[in-house]
Amino acid sequence: MANQTIKKLLQDVKDGKVSVSEAETMITKEAYTDLGYAKVDHHRKMRQGVSEVIYGAGKTPEQILGIAQSLVEAGNKTVLITRMSKEAMALVSTKYKVTYDEISKVGIIGSIPKADGNGTIVVACAGTSDLYVANEAALTAESMGNEVIRLYDVGVAGIHRLFAHMEQLQQAQVVIAIAGMEGALASVIGGLVDCPVIAVPTSVGYGANFGGLSALLSMLNSCASGVSVVNIDNGFGAGYLASMINHQTIKEKKLS
Amino acid sequence: MANQTIKKLLQDVKDGKVSVSEAETMITKEAYTDLGYAKVDHHRKMRQGVSEVIYGAGKTPEQILGIAQSLVEAGNKTVLITRMSKEAMALVSTKYKVTYDEISKVGIIGSIPKADGNGTIVVACAGTSDLYVANEAALTAESMGNEVIRLYDVGVAGIHRLFAHMEQLQQAQVVIAIAGMEGALASVIGGLVDCPVIAVPTSVGYGANFGGLSALLSMLNSCASGVSVVNIDNGFGAGYLASMINHQTIKEKKLS
Amino acid sequence: MANQTIKKLLQDVKDGKVSVSEAETMITKEAYTDLGYAKVDHHRKMRQGVSEVIYGAGKTPEQILGIAQSLVEAGNKTVLITRMSKEAMALVSTKYKVTYDEISKVGIIGSIPKADGNGTIVVACAGTSDLYVANEAALTAESMGNEVIRLYDVGVAGIHRLFAHMEQLQQAQVVIAIAGMEGALASVIGGLVDCPVIAVPTSVGYGANFGGLSALLSMLNSCASGVSVVNIDNGFGAGYLASMINHQTIKEKKLS
Amino acid sequence: MANQTIKKLLQDVKDGKVSVSEAETMITKEAYTDLGYAKVDHHRKMRQGVSEVIYGAGKTPEQILGIAQSLVEAGNKTVLITRMSKEAMALVSTKYKVTYDEISKVGIIGSIPKADGNGTIVVACAGTSDLYVANEAALTAESMGNEVIRLYDVGVAGIHRLFAHMEQLQQAQVVIAIAGMEGALASVIGGLVDCPVIAVPTSVGYGANFGGLSALLSMLNSCASGVSVVNIDNGFGAGYLASMINHQTIKEKKLS
Amino acid sequence: MANQTIKKLLQDVKDGKVSVSEAETMITKEAYTDLGYAKVDHHRKMRQGVSEVIYGAGKTPEQILGIAQSLVEAGNKTVLITRMSKEAMALVSTKYKVTYDEISKVGIIGSIPKADGNGTIVVACAGTSDLYVANEAALTAESMGNEVIRLYDVGVAGIHRLFAHMEQLQQAQVVIAIAGMEGALASVIGGLVDCPVIAVPTSVGYGANFGGLSALLSMLNSCASGVSVVNIDNGFGAGYLASMINHQTIKEKKLS
Amino acid sequence: MANQTIKKLLQDVKDGKVSVSEAETMITKEAYTDLGYAKVDHHRKMRQGVSEVIYGAGKTPEQILGIAQSLVEAGNKTVLITRMSKEAMALVSTKYKVTYDEISKVGIIGSIPKADGNGTIVVACAGTSDLYVANEAALTAESMGNEVIRLYDVGVAGIHRLFAHMEQLQQAQVVIAIAGMEGALASVIGGLVDCPVIAVPTSVGYGANFGGLSALLSMLNSCASGVSVVNIDNGFGAGYLASMINHQTIKEKKLS
Amino acid sequence: MANQTIKKLLQDVKDGKVSVSEAETMITKEAYTDLGYAKVDHHRKMRQGVSEVIYGAGKTPEQILGIAQSLVEAGNKTVLITRMSKEAMALVSTKYKVTYDEISKVGIIGSIPKADGNGTIVVACAGTSDLYVANEAALTAESMGNEVIRLYDVGVAGIHRLFAHMEQLQQAQVVIAIAGMEGALASVIGGLVDCPVIAVPTSVGYGANFGGLSALLSMLNSCASGVSVVNIDNGFGAGYLASMINHQTIKEKKLS
Amino acid sequence: MANQTIKKLLQDVKDGKVSVSEAETMITKEAYTDLGYAKVDHHRKMRQGVSEVIYGAGKTPEQILGIAQSLVEAGNKTVLITRMSKEAMALVSTKYKVTYDEISKVGIIGSIPKADGNGTIVVACAGTSDLYVANEAALTAESMGNEVIRLYDVGVAGIHRLFAHMEQLQQAQVVIAIAGMEGALASVIGGLVDCPVIAVPTSVGYGANFGGLSALLSMLNSCASGVSVVNIDNGFGAGYLASMINHQTIKEKKLS
Repeated sequence: MANQTIKKLLQDVKDGKVSVSEAETMITKEAYTDLGYAKVDHHRKMRQGVSEVIYGAGKTPEQILGIAQSLVEAGNKTVLITRMSKEAMALVSTKYKVTYDEISKVGIIGSIPKADGNGTIVVACAGTSDLYVANEAALTAESMGNEVIRLYDVGVAGIHRLFAHMEQLQQAQVVIAIAGMEGALASVIGGLVDCPVIAVPTSVGYGANFGGLSALLSMLNSCASGVSVVNIDNGFGAGYLASMINHQTIKEKKLS
Repeated sequence: MANQTIKKLLQDVKDGKVSVSEAETMITKEAYTDLGYAKVDHHRKMRQGVSEVIYGAGKTPEQILGIAQSLVEAGNKTVLITRMSKEAMALVSTKYKVTYDEISKVGIIGSIPKADGNGTIVVACAGTSDLYVANEAALTAESMGNEVIRLYDVGVAGIHRLFAHMEQLQQAQVVIAIAGMEGALASVIGGLVDCPVIAVPTSVGYGANFGGLSALLSMLNSCASGVSVVNIDNGFGAGYLASMINHQTIKEKKLS
Repeated sequence: MANQTIKKLLQDVKDGKVSVSEAETMITKEAYTDLGYAKVDHHRKMRQGVSEVIYGAGKTPEQILGIAQSLVEAGNKTVLITRMSKEAMALVSTKYKVTYDEISKVGIIGSIPKADGNGTIVVACAGTSDLYVANEAALTAESMGNEVIRLYDVGVAGIHRLFAHMEQLQQAQVVIAIAGMEGALASVIGGLVDCPVIAVPTSVGYGANFGGLSALLSMLNSCASGVSVVNIDNGFGAGYLASMINHQTIKEKKLS
Repeated sequence: MANQTIKKLLQDVKDGKVSVSEAETMITKEAYTDLGYAKVDHHRKMRQGVSEVIYGAGKTPEQILGIAQSLVEAGNKTVLITRMSKEAMALVSTKYKVTYDEISKVGIIGSIPKADGNGTIVVACAGTSDLYVANEAALTAESMGNEVIRLYDVGVAGIHRLFAHMEQLQQAQVVIAIAGMEGALASVIGGLVDCPVIAVPTSVGYGANFGGLSALLSMLNSCASGVSVVNIDNGFGAGYLASMINHQTIKEKKLS
Repeated sequence: MANQTIKKLLQDVKDGKVSVSEAETMITKEAYTDLGYAKVDHHRKMRQGVSEVIYGAGKTPEQILGIAQSLVEAGNKTVLITRMSKEAMALVSTKYKVTYDEISKVGIIGSIPKADGNGTIVVACAGTSDLYVANEAALTAESMGNEVIRLYDVGVAGIHRLFAHMEQLQQAQVVIAIAGMEGALASVIGGLVDCPVIAVPTSVGYGANFGGLSALLSMLNSCASGVSVVNIDNGFGAGYLASMINHQTIKEKKLS
Repeated sequence: MANQTIKKLLQDVKDGKVSVSEAETMITKEAYTDLGYAKVDHHRKMRQGVSEVIYGAGKTPEQILGIAQSLVEAGNKTVLITRMSKEAMALVSTKYKVTYDEISKVGIIGSIPKADGNGTIVVACAGTSDLYVANEAALTAESMGNEVIRLYDVGVAGIHRLFAHMEQLQQAQVVIAIAGMEGALASVIGGLVDCPVIAVPTSVGYGANFGGLSALLSMLNSCASGVSVVNIDNGFGAGYLASMINHQTIKEKKLS
Repeated sequence: MANQTIKKLLQDVKDGKVSVSEAETMITKEAYTDLGYAKVDHHRKMRQGVSEVIYGAGKTPEQILGIAQSLVEAGNKTVLITRMSKEAMALVSTKYKVTYDEISKVGIIGSIPKADGNGTIVVACAGTSDLYVANEAALTAESMGNEVIRLYDVGVAGIHRLFAHMEQLQQAQVVIAIAGMEGALASVIGGLVDCPVIAVPTSVGYGANFGGLSALLSMLNSCASGVSVVNIDNGFGAGYLASMINHQTIKEKKLS
Repeated sequence: MANQTIKKLLQDVKDGKVSVSEAETMITKEAYTDLGYAKVDHHRKMRQGVSEVIYGAGKTPEQILGIAQSLVEAGNKTVLITRMSKEAMALVSTKYKVTYDEISKVGIIGSIPKADGNGTIVVACAGTSDLYVANEAALTAESMGNEVIRLYDVGVAGIHRLFAHMEQLQQAQVVIAIAGMEGALASVIGGLVDCPVIAVPTSVGYGANFGGLSALLSMLNSCASGVSVVNIDNGFGAGYLASMINHQTIKEKKLS
């Protein structure tokens, strides 16, 4: 495995996706740092093009700070932390400058990189109550170098609000469709555009929404093609995948 | 209770909803006929305005014929039988003329009454695979005296097919929205019309549709108002309720 | 779509359902106001006969006030807010007079319109613990111009309490049947009346009620005809649909 | 444990519940016969007052016959076999006279004992489709010496059919309430009688009945007291328990 | 229905189950008192032999007190309140003397009647964590005139603790078997005794117990006969039903 | 909406994605053909870049043939039919030459287009039993002009079989990861590559796989980033989406 | 990874677990054979001590034969095939001598090795209907060199049948406890023995057993310690794991 | 049963597993102490080799202290308490010295015994958030005399972190694999080692992890052999079973 990873890294250097100094750090640095409670993965950027992201839920503020330090010291210019409590935010801020969004609980250490994707990512959500997920998706994408257009509160109960933005939808490189309740937004958008639609069910609703199950099943069973689904409330996963698609280059020519 | 039922019957006679001879039969006839395996309810029309309907599933052909005979003998001009197997159809046909739809397995003994509702009922379904439910709903409504407009295969993956029928939708007295998979059709229609929408989830689909659960949850969680739901694949229930709404008169004036 | 909506509005003006000044506001006003976190739908009354209602759950007090202001400024005389926290109530009250029901958390800005439906709506609930839903249904219906009769604590464990109100049930234009636990009330009422029954399962109960699932499944599988179901605890949806049915006019004559 | 069982047997002999020759067989006979594929329990009558019953599902005709032989040879005058296929019926009939009910697939080897319970057991079922369970319950109870009254097709959609039998219900020592779909029958009966109600959910229905889950949850959440539940379609279990209750004597006096 | 109820009451007076003064109160008193938020059922004792019990969950302290007053004023000497919060306890205590068990949250107004059942009721529970349900069952039974034997912490992980009480189990008129986790206790007891076993699943456990579902399904699928099940954590229902069985008299002789 | 669609079509003509004659057909052709049982969507290619695909399940052979004819007549050179029974295959073959794969039940009318995507699509499946889904994905992608590499039976129980293909995985433009049972393959691949991974859970397995639920939940909860999920057994959806991603061009430059 | 595997193999040769000729075959043979539809894993014995086993479900007879050939040619003396249809059995028998058990559908090519484990494995099942799983477990263990004691039909409804075999249970090195319905057998055995208990839930039962879910949850929530669970009906998995435990040697001394 | 237990105890004395004085205490001590709320099982060590462990959840601090005292007084040198709240910790500490781990809430009274197992137990967990379970497993095993190696944060998203510990994995006597989310770790490890793998699903994750259901189903459906599963979050159960396997001796020689 190691050989493959090195080969890929060198190719990335040649293609300008990784700078020489970054590559140097990656090669001289251990594959991971063992903090006892965590093994911070320093090869993730080599393998996957994006550094490890800190999922804050279930970690103590001290653990979050520890992992963040390890990533910063390994040379990462932007460190993304999702589901970060205010307590963790307070502690990490004692050491680093953090941009923090209270609605989505996303924190970003360091600078937001310039948008360098192939096109724009549209983040559309059905209602005001879905903003905690929509912001997570949008901020994740922006922290990875994407231009994001936000279309909020465009649920199908008033479908003309969605149609008013048809041009932005059709120009998008990827659309992230976020909805709770019956999650119909993903299917409707899926039927209108020719780019990938990443559907994010949310736990918004009550009763027979069963914590997001209704929107999840709805999106998995979408009658529109080109739609795939991530976990309930997983704005991060959608933003990450959208960025990956938006940054795709043609590999054939690069590797052969 | 009996007194209330009689009072209501007399009012119906006065209002012309029940003829004198029908009322005579109802009053002189027992409240139900006990066939051992079934107690045929002869007061249902008095109480609810529609005679007992035979749900064919789980009944033998002989039982279906027996109940049908009891209903015909009690003076019913139209007897509706749902979920009727071909075997049952064959047996009942030896005795009565039956109109039978192979797709929905609906059988009707006797004549279809003239449409006498307040307006039209639109039966819209998302895909070709939903016809077995759509036909059950449409035939049920027609057998109870309603004008029905069928809009088939208007699912949201190609939403222009639905919009092409906007006028019919907006003119409807009731809309029955039938869909499997993600069931988004109900929410989209619900956001466009100002009449009741009866949503019928179907078991069409596979995998995570879990036998219709996806469409069911989707419809129960509709973000559009004015939408209510019946059981999975329950075309009959939707047609029955639609007929009830389409035949509503103003009670206040009648009963006070 | 736009053309259809205009045509319908003009018809409504001709029929007296919308006043000339209201229509003027509607036509000159944008289709929706974009508040960033919400796109307030000003065409909903045109399309559906009732203005947008604010679903308070998952919205901040500031967002609720913002949307309410937008609706009031668009000319709405009554603004209904459901699932409104006391905090939101306090903030909105600084600007508007709000009628607030603590049990159901329903708030109403402005005046309750005169009842102008075809008949009465009966709101029946099985137990004292169901009042939070029953009140939501009743207040929703009243805020939309309906006369409501409340029959509370008439569950089937003491069925004579229900039968004592048989006349009111049989005179109703619509019945809303609300129950948790086993939800049998909907089926029993469904077998007694000849008008639509809107069943609302509640999350009342414990253990194998699974947050309202028992009553939901019970109601979806009702052996009585004429029963349809809305989401668990969705008193609003039931009240809205009941109002819609109670205000039905004969469209055929109006639009053709 | 063995001592306890012997003590109980001797008490039963003294009370006349077990004859001297039966007791002799029980004591001299092994506690169970090992057939390899089954260990036939000969002490069950001593412990529980009723011999082992053969649950036919999942057993080959040969296994059923083998176990039946073992029970007959151990001195049992009546052997009850439930869920017995026609193939098993054919094989067992080559050796023993079997009374067989095709609807419930219950087979009985030997004679039906005289009814010697404290009172009557009412077996009530909601619809014609529930007969396969109702017959299993009734035949089980009869094979154990009970007088059974059958009330079939008394579901709540036509509740007057149930009320017509109020006297039989109130006179019952136990009521078995059998229903599929929403299972409301159990709650309604539970609210009317002062004896134990054993509720049996059936898998009758479709869609959101989820194989009997709707009726099961409904019955478990019954708002009426005095209702307990057995497994879906478990007519045997209900008949057995009803017989046990109907044969109760006052133990205090017997054992002290 | 009313006639049946009266007839039954008179029979109960003749049999000494209801005193003359109680009967007088019942006949002269209305069938129920309407408190607006509740319709207190005064005929329940006539119909079912036990007065209405107050289920405290979901009711305000004021509502609980109001219903309690209504019951006391109707002549009830013992009023049982289950799931009663400390707040409700405090309020009701300002007016009545209440015996309150903190573990089960059961409150009893008035005196505990003398045990007058046919025998003893054994309340067995699997672990210390199940006491909140076991106490509810035991107190319910005692408040209805039963002698109760408590066997606590006799789960199958140390099955000798159960066998040490074999004599008490075999002498019981009814056994209530309470267990969370895998709920095996019900089946094991069911295989040892010849009296009805009422199984109560509890929500004790974690993970894949899914709030009591594991014990519930386990008990519903018991391989032992004579076992029936009530709702998860429903100690009250088990105690009530056990009392009903323990007080059974032979009806045949009484009513014919 | 129509205007947007036309604008997009013209842009596609300019970009060479649609030929002049194809565009002519599209514009002069109706938006859909109404066959009664189906409304064949002729604008799908304009909107989404790919023509309508026939989902064969739940459609009669006659309906499938009818829709196929409508698509062929509208100028489509390749018509893809999924879940096509042998009966349907036989009927359609009387009229058209069909390439048919018995394992996946995929049929293709017309010629397979030359691969013109950006790179290769890897279709990896965990076991031999997953081939029915893997083939559906691979054939769908090939029918839409993609080069596909098949890696079959590379499940994690023998992980060296997967690592042996690391180079192909890392060179892929998109990976489709197909697995039943515990579905771990998706996460393992997701952690190794830097391109989008489309996970397809299959219903392969038994017992607690619950028809594919285990793999579905596993994939939705993948700890690896860049993974999204389609419906259980939905090889078609995965192949379609993979093709979409593999054909992405940079829109920004095209449309602005 | 490869290095580790080789090191382990050499150690196994030194310890006599693998013969020199077997090791030679393993090293010179490819790590897997690629049959297109399958990649037969030849290193599994090196890694895990047991060769690859063929899971027959979902594979065609031809595929099964092909994989079997590949395994035989790689030098395996015993090839185990589970869930093997009669059709597959017939085909494989044309080439190899197969021992086949019709109840469990287990087929074994080659000879059963001599039992060489540390002790005995007890396979206990609750009822006759569980034999299809019990046999799969027993035959799997025997085909891997274990002495197996079968205790069939020892369910808790007649618990003395289990206690009669207490000595065999307490002497066992491992116990496999197999049960459907409520699965109580695992907990009861778990409380009696001091060796690992592998619990296998079966799908035996009906209604609320939900295809084995009841026994599965029961076993996962066992109050007894030392119990772990495999998939529903997974007799193979239990037999395999039991063999692994029964063949454990002390590694410390071997590898250090 | 008693005889068997004594016989086993004497054998254990002979084998040196139990000291003479311990055996004396066991024999002279009652089989259990009845504390009213608990029956402390003093024969568990005789039967199962390990004393009763206190499951702290659902018990009051007083009850925990009471049971602990009973165990200490019965001669236990180490008392393990799991799921122990800080309140309980505080109370028990007033009487005994307790080692307490805040993350897993495990408390140990008395000394940790010397490791005397056959080899090492590896406790591997997928992420930092799983530590509360991993610590419970590790501390349980250590408190029962095992050497434990902790491999934390080795989830499959960065699989090189796991492979870096291949030697420790292959040398283990037992591996405990702990993971939430998709639980793939268990299958990957299961495919790499030749010793038993005990899989522990955790409730770590969100959305469609449904409280640990995703990892649970994943692990139950593992395609790797030799894997068995305990309840969600049941670190204790895994540690206990691992210790049991790690302490296995060859019974055959001992007992025959």
